[in-house]
Amino acid sequence: MNINNLYHGLPSALPAEMIETLAGNNHVRIERIVSRGHCSPPGFWYEQAENEWVIVLKGQARLRFERGDRVLLLNAGDHVDIPAGERHRVDWTIDDGTDTVWLAVFYPEPPQQ
Amino acid sequence: MNINNLYHGLPSALPAEMIETLAGNNHVRIERIVSRGHCSPPGFWYEQAENEWVIVLKGQARLRFERGDRVLLLNAGDHVDIPAGERHRVDWTIDDGTDTVWLAVFYPEPPQQ
Repeated sequence: MNINNLYHGLPSALPAEMIETLAGNNHVRIERIVSRGHCSPPGFWYEQAENEWVIVLKGQARLRFERGDRVLLLNAGDHVDIPAGERHRVDWTIDDGTDTVWLAVFYPEPPQQ
Repeated sequence: MNINNLYHGLPSALPAEMIETLAGNNHVRIERIVSRGHCSPPGFWYEQAENEWVIVLKGQARLRFERGDRVLLLNAGDHVDIPAGERHRVDWTIDDGTDTVWLAVFYPEPPQQ
């Protein structure tokens, strides 16, 4: 067991969003995502097979959900639980030089008994 | 889907450690834990059936592991992945009035095929 720090190892240049798996197995996945003004490409929607619980721990971001054309502004500490299949995109992350650090937990529904 | 904030809703009085489930299902569990100088009772060891990935996001804490009598000091942002069955305890959390806010993800091994 090693200690790692969520806020360390942020690159000086970040041409694309950075995604790293911190822990998990082939069932559950805990990721750190670092954005620096990055957002989803125009017209792109995430449509995921797994649930995603996500929190912004630094920076600021705006998520858009296709259903109801709903927009959520996430500040540091804000979290939201996105059900599998819920189409969403990252509309915006703050681009004043601040990194937006996300923590995401992807988890499936439990197997049917 | 609602936004909640990890740092909101901290009680003014905290006679015992506060544990809340933020998301998950009967398989995976995401918890917020708030400590204010709390630690494990003398001689107590956690011995869990699930893996636990845990991060300290505010405050400071010391974890002790029975194996090798290893001690880890966790500052804000520090995370560690504790395998199922690994006996550990919270030796100490900062008690200068600062809350220690933990985020823990309990996740099982995937089912055998």
